[in-house]
Amino acid sequence: MTSRSRSGGRSARRALRSTLDVTMQPALRRNIPLCEVMDGAQVETIDAASMDILENVGVHFRDPIAIEDWKSVGAKVVDETVYLDRGMVRELIATIPTEFTYHARNPAYNLPFGKDHSIFVPMTGAPYLRDLDDVRRNPTLDDLAMFHKLAHMSPALHSSAHHIVEPYDHPISQRHLRITYSSMKYSDKTFMGMTTSPKNAEDVMDMCAILFGESFMESHAVTTGNCNGNSPLVWDETMLGAMRAFCKRNQPVLCSPFVLGGANTPASVPATVAQLNAEALSALSYTQIIRRGCPAIYGHYLSTVSMKSGAPMAGTPEISLMNFMIGQMARYYDVPWRTSNTLGGAKTFDAQAGYESASTLSAVLHAGANYIWHSAGWNEAGMHCSVAKFIVDAEQCAMGYKMAEGPKWGDFDTAVAAVPDIGPGGHYLGHPHTQENFQSAFFMPELFDNNSIEQWAAEGSVEITERALQRARFLLGEYQEPKLDEAKDEELLAYIARREREIPARDELNQSY
Amino acid sequence: MTSRSRSGGRSARRALRSTLDVTMQPALRRNIPLCEVMDGAQVETIDAASMDILENVGVHFRDPIAIEDWKSVGAKVVDETVYLDRGMVRELIATIPTEFTYHARNPAYNLPFGKDHSIFVPMTGAPYLRDLDDVRRNPTLDDLAMFHKLAHMSPALHSSAHHIVEPYDHPISQRHLRITYSSMKYSDKTFMGMTTSPKNAEDVMDMCAILFGESFMESHAVTTGNCNGNSPLVWDETMLGAMRAFCKRNQPVLCSPFVLGGANTPASVPATVAQLNAEALSALSYTQIIRRGCPAIYGHYLSTVSMKSGAPMAGTPEISLMNFMIGQMARYYDVPWRTSNTLGGAKTFDAQAGYESASTLSAVLHAGANYIWHSAGWNEAGMHCSVAKFIVDAEQCAMGYKMAEGPKWGDFDTAVAAVPDIGPGGHYLGHPHTQENFQSAFFMPELFDNNSIEQWAAEGSVEITERALQRARFLLGEYQEPKLDEAKDEELLAYIARREREIPARDELNQSY
Repeated sequence: MTSRSRSGGRSARRALRSTLDVTMQPALRRNIPLCEVMDGAQVETIDAASMDILENVGVHFRDPIAIEDWKSVGAKVVDETVYLDRGMVRELIATIPTEFTYHARNPAYNLPFGKDHSIFVPMTGAPYLRDLDDVRRNPTLDDLAMFHKLAHMSPALHSSAHHIVEPYDHPISQRHLRITYSSMKYSDKTFMGMTTSPKNAEDVMDMCAILFGESFMESHAVTTGNCNGNSPLVWDETMLGAMRAFCKRNQPVLCSPFVLGGANTPASVPATVAQLNAEALSALSYTQIIRRGCPAIYGHYLSTVSMKSGAPMAGTPEISLMNFMIGQMARYYDVPWRTSNTLGGAKTFDAQAGYESASTLSAVLHAGANYIWHSAGWNEAGMHCSVAKFIVDAEQCAMGYKMAEGPKWGDFDTAVAAVPDIGPGGHYLGHPHTQENFQSAFFMPELFDNNSIEQWAAEGSVEITERALQRARFLLGEYQEPKLDEAKDEELLAYIARREREIPARDELNQSY
Repeated sequence: MTSRSRSGGRSARRALRSTLDVTMQPALRRNIPLCEVMDGAQVETIDAASMDILENVGVHFRDPIAIEDWKSVGAKVVDETVYLDRGMVRELIATIPTEFTYHARNPAYNLPFGKDHSIFVPMTGAPYLRDLDDVRRNPTLDDLAMFHKLAHMSPALHSSAHHIVEPYDHPISQRHLRITYSSMKYSDKTFMGMTTSPKNAEDVMDMCAILFGESFMESHAVTTGNCNGNSPLVWDETMLGAMRAFCKRNQPVLCSPFVLGGANTPASVPATVAQLNAEALSALSYTQIIRRGCPAIYGHYLSTVSMKSGAPMAGTPEISLMNFMIGQMARYYDVPWRTSNTLGGAKTFDAQAGYESASTLSAVLHAGANYIWHSAGWNEAGMHCSVAKFIVDAEQCAMGYKMAEGPKWGDFDTAVAAVPDIGPGGHYLGHPHTQENFQSAFFMPELFDNNSIEQWAAEGSVEITERALQRARFLLGEYQEPKLDEAKDEELLAYIARREREIPARDELNQSY
């Protein structure tokens, strides 16, 4: 590696800087057809199968408060099993908003959410990172801040998420405070709220109240929390408690069955969707018992399981098909939905990672997902977040964004008028229409190298991992902090200081995806 | 690299061998919705713009025979410019068959072609390969044979194509004979016919006549030839002569405008499609002047151009959008169509190659392409065919195949019946339905590693390139030649010997993609 290829040189940096625009793209408004692989009768077949499961098999709510809540609305409850009548389910989910605005601290970065809109949210929950030198190690709060800065600098990412990586240099029992502060401080985009315990979720709500105002939250979504189910058909106390903390403050949660297809679901794509759908409906229904009309998001974490090794797999055909089907079910119930994007099991940022991520990105866009989580950095089945992959994935989201917007017809007449100007055998590079439109007409990826092999070799034979790490270093050098209001910043820090005095420093891991 | 991880060990080889099934999958029958990004009016807008171009700008047919042919059907011709009246175009293309059977020498490998069917064809035309040791060098006839064997051993590939790599150890003027023989000999799947000159194309036709019989060819498609246009709006003598050689024998050609979007087309997605569509229509029309009712395929080679470097780009959003649109135009004219699959510009088999290939594979399946060329091995903008990538791409085609077949509902009732059997909190691994169906329910990629990093490290930290090369060595070790009929083999060899005496050994390159 020559220093020239590593740094790109002073003039190259200047050129990069002059074209750098980190303004966030608005929420994607999709304008391509949805890939709907089920006809109306098949959608109803899934619905009926899910309702049969809810009524006859039931769902375990392993939480005394939830059990009481279900009894209070007249559900049949036997021990921890709740039998959900289909009429009750339909009536409960009917009050979930079809769409809402997801607020950021920078109002210019507010996001219309639901229906034709999609947003890209980085990965979260990695216990390791591959860092700026591609070294795999445990992350720190500084590493987390780095990812929040990179999310801020990536125009197609709509959120700084929350614990992109787990900061191991801070006690786990207090970590949610520092994670939330980091999300709020280093970016003014939307962010996610930690749901690692009911108490932690309350802290997040209190910090949101400092940032946005208690009463504003009563009628505006300012964060999202994720609640994983334990498939098949179980919701636990931690997740249900966190769900209550969010819903009581009118903040949306993602109701996410955690599916390892074939291991905790039947070995069938439609039957897996039927079970997952039942699980999602049970949690979505519960959000409306907690607070009628509270926004909620149909979620899922979806992998299939290798019957050779038991390992989760991603980028497989069934993941695509299930995404198409889940999208149809969410639309059937008129509820916005979440999916996962760049899942994969590669250990390094090799071609496997590229295939897995691109296959999934394409599928979730054709599926019409609203909340496209894990959109940057995911590798090794979520065990690490890769800086290099984060950068490339973020550009892939920008490319997927442009694809999903559909073709642009605005300049069609003038563009076609160039054809007689040029005529057979000519070329268009000097034509005024080309000069005016080439920047916007065809996406030019920064991270893909399309030069000749001779040019590439002359520049040091740099593969994509190192190119992306160079880009990450450049972006971090250019990062400008979107300053928090000083009074709010002080109030947040005072809240954290108080809570860190109150909460014993413990280190058991209780992680949500 | 330990010898254990390299060879996989004797018992691992035995296990692999016991599950190895190289039977070709039938032509894919797609059962997912088409991604149609244009409404009916927009399709007609493109059609009208293309017809205006054909009538008013005209197309250069740089070939005296073609010019005479056009005059003979009453077209307006000025020098080499043919002005195609839209009525004449519509009337000519109306006789192109919507679908036909593409015959292989093994009748079990015949392919229904057109409409909902798709076939995967390997890349062709690479002047370099990355070999079994990932070394980049010029290929030989043995290397070509190796790729023909690998195509034969890949169930989702439907063809051995023709010159996957250029065999540099044989004079170029005679090369087409050896290439064609290699395609015919090492696989009994369908193959492509060389179109590097009119004479070469005649040789291919004669060799096909030996293999299939002269009169059989009169009513059956037994190969496909590619004819590239020179965008904008030029067809040259070489391609038109080769086209005549094929069409006269009733063999289909791909009519493929060679588009470098922004350089030889306007800087606009819909305007590029309008020009490309005009170009394809002009050649499709000419096939029907040569021989009324002859099968023909709407083709294209499609990249966009980086305005920074002039390099072709692949895996970009506009490539996907143009594929969706071209598919709509081909269906509007009721003609089967060809696309390119795994195009990309990476210099090695790195993550860039994975992203580019998977993005394109997904797009062309959603676009509903019939003839999915360049489906395995393509890298470095076509400058090399990578053995490793060939193997992984072939598996990706198998995965895309399964996705595009849509969900399987056959066992839905028994699969859903497993849910009450297992109940909340259980697991499905031991359930009879799982035991019976796990092999077919969820695709398990051979080339993706989904093990833990500890397991992966214990096995030698092998990235996907080396895993794929191991797989290639294994497949080549297991390869069994599908023997040619002895009399036909002798006749083919005698033909080649005679033609090699007749054709001067020359070495100018005249390559078709």
